Amino acid sequence: MDELLGGGIPRGRVILVTGGPGTGKTIMCAQFMFNGITKYGENGIFVSLEEAKHHFYREMANFGFDFPELEKQKKFIFLDASPIRHMPEEVQIGRIRVGRGDFSIDSLVERIRTSADMINAKRIALDPLTSLTLQYADISKRRTAILDLIEALMMRDATVLVTTELRQLGPQRSVELEEYITHGVITLQTLSIKRSRLRVIQVDKMREREIDLQPKPYRITEKGIEVFPKENIFE
Amino acid sequence: MDELLGGGIPRGRVILVTGGPGTGKTIMCAQFMFNGITKYGENGIFVSLEEAKHHFYREMANFGFDFPELEKQKKFIFLDASPIRHMPEEVQIGRIRVGRGDFSIDSLVERIRTSADMINAKRIALDPLTSLTLQYADISKRRTAILDLIEALMMRDATVLVTTELRQLGPQRSVELEEYITHGVITLQTLSIKRSRLRVIQVDKMREREIDLQPKPYRITEKGIEVFPKENIFE
Amino acid sequence: MDELLGGGIPRGRVILVTGGPGTGKTIMCAQFMFNGITKYGENGIFVSLEEAKHHFYREMANFGFDFPELEKQKKFIFLDASPIRHMPEEVQIGRIRVGRGDFSIDSLVERIRTSADMINAKRIALDPLTSLTLQYADISKRRTAILDLIEALMMRDATVLVTTELRQLGPQRSVELEEYITHGVITLQTLSIKRSRLRVIQVDKMREREIDLQPKPYRITEKGIEVFPKENIFE
Amino acid sequence: MDELLGGGIPRGRVILVTGGPGTGKTIMCAQFMFNGITKYGENGIFVSLEEAKHHFYREMANFGFDFPELEKQKKFIFLDASPIRHMPEEVQIGRIRVGRGDFSIDSLVERIRTSADMINAKRIALDPLTSLTLQYADISKRRTAILDLIEALMMRDATVLVTTELRQLGPQRSVELEEYITHGVITLQTLSIKRSRLRVIQVDKMREREIDLQPKPYRITEKGIEVFPKENIFE
Amino acid sequence: MDELLGGGIPRGRVILVTGGPGTGKTIMCAQFMFNGITKYGENGIFVSLEEAKHHFYREMANFGFDFPELEKQKKFIFLDASPIRHMPEEVQIGRIRVGRGDFSIDSLVERIRTSADMINAKRIALDPLTSLTLQYADISKRRTAILDLIEALMMRDATVLVTTELRQLGPQRSVELEEYITHGVITLQTLSIKRSRLRVIQVDKMREREIDLQPKPYRITEKGIEVFPKENIFE
Amino acid sequence: MDELLGGGIPRGRVILVTGGPGTGKTIMCAQFMFNGITKYGENGIFVSLEEAKHHFYREMANFGFDFPELEKQKKFIFLDASPIRHMPEEVQIGRIRVGRGDFSIDSLVERIRTSADMINAKRIALDPLTSLTLQYADISKRRTAILDLIEALMMRDATVLVTTELRQLGPQRSVELEEYITHGVITLQTLSIKRSRLRVIQVDKMREREIDLQPKPYRITEKGIEVFPKENIFE
Repeated sequence: MDELLGGGIPRGRVILVTGGPGTGKTIMCAQFMFNGITKYGENGIFVSLEEAKHHFYREMANFGFDFPELEKQKKFIFLDASPIRHMPEEVQIGRIRVGRGDFSIDSLVERIRTSADMINAKRIALDPLTSLTLQYADISKRRTAILDLIEALMMRDATVLVTTELRQLGPQRSVELEEYITHGVITLQTLSIKRSRLRVIQVDKMREREIDLQPKPYRITEKGIEVFPKENIFE
Repeated sequence: MDELLGGGIPRGRVILVTGGPGTGKTIMCAQFMFNGITKYGENGIFVSLEEAKHHFYREMANFGFDFPELEKQKKFIFLDASPIRHMPEEVQIGRIRVGRGDFSIDSLVERIRTSADMINAKRIALDPLTSLTLQYADISKRRTAILDLIEALMMRDATVLVTTELRQLGPQRSVELEEYITHGVITLQTLSIKRSRLRVIQVDKMREREIDLQPKPYRITEKGIEVFPKENIFE
Repeated sequence: MDELLGGGIPRGRVILVTGGPGTGKTIMCAQFMFNGITKYGENGIFVSLEEAKHHFYREMANFGFDFPELEKQKKFIFLDASPIRHMPEEVQIGRIRVGRGDFSIDSLVERIRTSADMINAKRIALDPLTSLTLQYADISKRRTAILDLIEALMMRDATVLVTTELRQLGPQRSVELEEYITHGVITLQTLSIKRSRLRVIQVDKMREREIDLQPKPYRITEKGIEVFPKENIFE
Repeated sequence: MDELLGGGIPRGRVILVTGGPGTGKTIMCAQFMFNGITKYGENGIFVSLEEAKHHFYREMANFGFDFPELEKQKKFIFLDASPIRHMPEEVQIGRIRVGRGDFSIDSLVERIRTSADMINAKRIALDPLTSLTLQYADISKRRTAILDLIEALMMRDATVLVTTELRQLGPQRSVELEEYITHGVITLQTLSIKRSRLRVIQVDKMREREIDLQPKPYRITEKGIEVFPKENIFE
Repeated sequence: MDELLGGGIPRGRVILVTGGPGTGKTIMCAQFMFNGITKYGENGIFVSLEEAKHHFYREMANFGFDFPELEKQKKFIFLDASPIRHMPEEVQIGRIRVGRGDFSIDSLVERIRTSADMINAKRIALDPLTSLTLQYADISKRRTAILDLIEALMMRDATVLVTTELRQLGPQRSVELEEYITHGVITLQTLSIKRSRLRVIQVDKMREREIDLQPKPYRITEKGIEVFPKENIFE
Repeated sequence: MDELLGGGIPRGRVILVTGGPGTGKTIMCAQFMFNGITKYGENGIFVSLEEAKHHFYREMANFGFDFPELEKQKKFIFLDASPIRHMPEEVQIGRIRVGRGDFSIDSLVERIRTSADMINAKRIALDPLTSLTLQYADISKRRTAILDLIEALMMRDATVLVTTELRQLGPQRSVELEEYITHGVITLQTLSIKRSRLRVIQVDKMREREIDLQPKPYRITEKGIEVFPKENIFE
């Protein structure tokens, strides 16, 4: 991974992990977190917008990521933010009414900050961002909301991964605005190459890094995501 | 099938079976149910949103699936949920008004739970999910509704298959949100390969399993769906 | 045709005939009707949503289908349902107001049933379904309406053909919901193959039948639609 | 042309001439009219929705079509229907208000009938239909309006040509509903074949005729439209 | 150019020049104007909807088109119509309110006529038409407005060029209605041919002319637009 | 770069830099600014709509662009315009209400002018324009707003770069109106060529310049953007 990224993900930045269904976006976030804690002593927070805690723990145990242990050691916090979707459409705060979208982002940021302070977190993952941004039908407000969220997350001197879901497959796809607003973009895809389907990772953007643009094959094995940076997918 | 799935469908998960018209989505669900009951002693519930009971029974008899017998033995329940579409747009419950979509999902989940308790069901199929989700025009509410439904279905420690219909054919197709929210995705398609039309099955996603990404040919024969996992569709 | 269909169209089912302009959807329905009456003694009803009776009779006489004679023998009824389009947008029935779409489908089904009872019809054609379904802009209501119509038509133990019009040509076309809701789908297309334009028929779906998926050439001759099931369109 | 059409355009039918810009739709209508009057003694009416009379006359003189002379002989009527577009959005007739679309079609049909009676017209052209149908944004109302117009025009035992404009170029184009509702479809296109741009005519549909499906080259020369039915555009 | 057009642009007609960004639509208009005045003694009016006078003059001087001199000789008028966009949405005239679109077109036509009378103009260019037509969101009103504008411009026995902007690149592009309503269409594109990007001009339509359909290369040089009609872009 | 542009970007013009995510639009603007100040003595203003000052400074330091030093020397001003997105939807000014879009553009232009006067700026960059234009859902108002902004920026006898984001990738992409309204267009893309992904720069339009249309490879290195104008990307 580090070779692709020209030396790891830069500190203080928000990086987008985008990909089709089943390409391992959640696994990549968990692996980034687990390695950070166990190899570099960087504590982490996983903010889950959809998956429940026990499901996440059980699934990640398959890859040898023992998050319950890390949680016990106060090196890891799992923030279950999925209740956000049960909030009413509008919330009455004093004399003003706030839409669910704005309120949930504000309170979510608040909770992430408090948790990050508690364990001095250096790595944060938010999975999936889609769950928050879908609430803004108007593209201009959606952009403002994502910009605000990213700015808020940047205040922590930590590296942040956020995931989104590709809405369209194929070469003519439209570009989602999250790809412009975040500071780096990693794309995970399943491509049909040489009469076989292959998982392919590609770095499209990484501020402050000289990246390798070439797509590389990867596999989801019992150790998590394994990238093969020496292989050319076309040869 | 098991080879493709890296060891069967994981327990406690909701798996999406998506495919074009006539690709055998309903047959796959019925076969999964029938094999579960007769080979593994896992009782099952088939929740039908559109097809009536006698039609389902008659059609499945063609494949040797004797559901009336299993029903008599209290190993199988056919839940005819098709009346849901005759419900009024809004329902008045006490002092609040609930939209048809929300109400029908709540009451449906309630009935599935009661039925599952009665026969200790380990396999559940819901066919097609489309009939429920089309009621939500707003994509954000639709996501919330499907997430709630899937969460509710996961509480039973059973394996759940839900079916959806591909809205667009071809390589540039858009990704439906159901493919992201469910824990596994099996795609059934009719492809034009080597100047001939071929039925092809492919596993795109399966949490907790190391899957075989390659598409495999299958046929709908008198025994139901037969997959040929050793064959490469391009050779 | 029977070879393609794996033994004829199953009784008690609603089959969709979909195709581009000029591919012979109406001729296929008429031929199915005429052969049913003259070869198998199965009486028939042709429900026309757009074409007037004298035009239909004149055009079908070109293929040797003598419907006026069959009508005289009380073996065939032509139901001219085209006045439906002149109905007002809303109809006042007692104290409730019903939209044109719902009312026209209900009254149409009523008339089809009465007619079917009169001659003990075993074959029914409805051409084109599009004329009814276009009235529902909302996709959820449209699905409900078509499901209701198909259920109502299935109550007669007869085989039913309905026609729809392809809205888009080419391989990337979107799938219309009628293709999922009906029990069988026959597609008629004009394709550009080997530098020549060719009429091609293909069976995409047929419940209770093991179908031949391969597309076959056909021609519209003086005898009606002639399929060449032994020919491969690519050789 | 007659070879392509399997023996000319059938009497009493409404035929669609559809094509891209500059493909000669108006010329084809004028030529059909001029030949009808001068070769077959069939009088004609040209209903122009956009082009003014003197422009039409001047342009057609280039092809040797002397319409002023035919008009003097009472064999031809040019109906300038272009003022329709200056009508107000709604018209008050007695106590009801009628939309421009409905009113303009009714009054147009009325004028066409009166004119047709005056010279016993056997050929009618309406160019372009688009000008009328664009007024109906709702697809269901648009279909009803076109069906009504075509039915009204069919009452005259005459052959009717109507023109429409292709909204999209290329093989994946969507099918306009006019192609389904009319009794025949002739398509005029400019295609890029063998590294050169070529005008190509093709008959997609013609009720009561066994047509030649193959596209044929044509040119717009000083004599009007010249089709080369013996040539294959790909050789 | 004249070879392509089969003998120049016909008098009394409105010709559309459509093209992608940077293809020289404005230069083509200016060149048409300059050559008309200096070579054929046909005075001209350039109606600019967006570019200011001094910018136009400065840019065109690069190609040796000395418009200030021609203006001094009363052979050329530059009509700066760009203030139209600062008009309020609606204008109150006496007791009726007129939309900006309708008003601006009427007053613009009025000014063009007055100017044309002053110098007996035989050539008029309006650049870009898009600025006016974008004001009509409804396609039916937009068509009416453009038809009215074109009719008004045709009353002067002059040749008129109007420019529009291609909204989509590539072979599957949709056809804009301006291409149907105007009497001729010249398309300017930048194509990728033989691994190199090339400027290509093509005449799609020209009433009263037998045109050369083949695309031809052109360059924007210090003399303006230079077409190479003998070259085939594919060889 | 200068070779591609036919001699640099012309003075007094507004040039669009458009590109996909991570293609270096911001770097190109900064480099243009830095070179202008250090090599040609042309002071500059960077108007940032989204990126905060310290992030911009830190990132550009990677390329050796020492903006803090230039700022100290009063040769460079960084205008942080990102607070615009926190403005309320409408602003009450005296008795009239102004939409956020219009107000923010007016006040932004005002600030740019004041700043430009202070340091006699000859180079201005506005990054990204998208942040302003997304506020106008209506295409006609959006065009007017951009035209006004560009006109306002042109009054300074300075060269202006504005950036926008490509919304769609691939050859069939739609053209954004900014490409027509600005005086030059530079496109930055990541293309898949010869089985490898390559960064490619291309000049599509440049008023007053004879440009080289061919796409050229570029790299983002430690010196910023390096173009290789002698290389052909296809060889």
